[in-house]
Amino acid sequence: MQIAILLFDRFTALDAVGPYEMLCRTPGAETVFVAERTGPVRNDRGSLSLVADRTLAEVPSPDVLVVPGGPGQSDQMENEALLGWLRSADATSTWTTSVCSGSLLLAAAGLLSGRRATSHWLALDSLKAYGVEPTAERVVTDGKYVTAAGVSSGIDMGLTLVGRIAGDEHARAVQLLTEYDPQPPYDCGSPAKAPAALVEEFRTKNRFILR
Amino acid sequence: MQIAILLFDRFTALDAVGPYEMLCRTPGAETVFVAERTGPVRNDRGSLSLVADRTLAEVPSPDVLVVPGGPGQSDQMENEALLGWLRSADATSTWTTSVCSGSLLLAAAGLLSGRRATSHWLALDSLKAYGVEPTAERVVTDGKYVTAAGVSSGIDMGLTLVGRIAGDEHARAVQLLTEYDPQPPYDCGSPAKAPAALVEEFRTKNRFILR
Repeated sequence: MQIAILLFDRFTALDAVGPYEMLCRTPGAETVFVAERTGPVRNDRGSLSLVADRTLAEVPSPDVLVVPGGPGQSDQMENEALLGWLRSADATSTWTTSVCSGSLLLAAAGLLSGRRATSHWLALDSLKAYGVEPTAERVVTDGKYVTAAGVSSGIDMGLTLVGRIAGDEHARAVQLLTEYDPQPPYDCGSPAKAPAALVEEFRTKNRFILR
Repeated sequence: MQIAILLFDRFTALDAVGPYEMLCRTPGAETVFVAERTGPVRNDRGSLSLVADRTLAEVPSPDVLVVPGGPGQSDQMENEALLGWLRSADATSTWTTSVCSGSLLLAAAGLLSGRRATSHWLALDSLKAYGVEPTAERVVTDGKYVTAAGVSSGIDMGLTLVGRIAGDEHARAVQLLTEYDPQPPYDCGSPAKAPAALVEEFRTKNRFILR
């Protein structure tokens, strides 16, 4: 089994590393970071680089495809090299997944048409333009397509997928080993829980605030 | 303000990237990944590389110091180049922090003597040998020392620290932007919640199982 995590300039680091840390513990699986070119890929803040060890061409048919999001997603929406790879990889994948605005890339590739999917809460409505049904849940599964909400939700998506692939018992062991027993110091992690004024401030400014 | 995140061979990726994704949104802060040598540093699985942009010598006095853990921590416990840097960086830091078995490195450097601290649950007892009081909480603050439990707990530590540095209002905005509203698909993320047999299996085998 091969798990491919896509990288592109100005991706959000935790979008990729959250699911990675769960999925890389799938028994018998090889996990690879892929990009158009091999080498370091800078994140949205410019202060972190993850290395792409393989080109897209070198990973033509992963079993599991993970597409992170981030501000750089918007620059890829008409990149046929990347969208074409998503389509061909998806043609043989067992699971095609995304975190955050990564679902917009899957949507732009035409892979989510008529399906339910989620995204970062600030990007959720943008799915409609691609014939996708925006679904405000943290992890949305529709057939083999598993999309996660913003940034940190990729951890929940990754662990959910480990359970589907390797069974609940193994997934629980992964949760225990990674001590995934979250205790956020605030309760402000979704637009439903945050003060309306803060949500509105994000909506009326732009999604790159605080980035 | 400068935030330095230490890298070393066979670190655990989420230990570093979890707090990074929170702390990098501290207003006016520069976040840098540091290691003995610049360039890619491989994680514990061998399938991920994060780039160290600066050497230890180039970052002598960060305001915030973050030390991740991972299986590679054990190889650094007598590395005076690294331990010496921890001591000198700590001498002027505002906050000295760790995730997972990173607290053992702080302990080996003599920085936690007589203090309360936590670590990955499988490494917690090892703190005693360094005169540290093992404390089975997810995030432990003792003076300027903030230690986090295993792997994913670094996100809680990072967000806690953002609140201390930049205020609760800013930290809540960071939580909303990173959509940190965790919904784990299982409830098995700590030894207190996991089946006793699974906990025992980890304890009697070794901590590298599933790695």
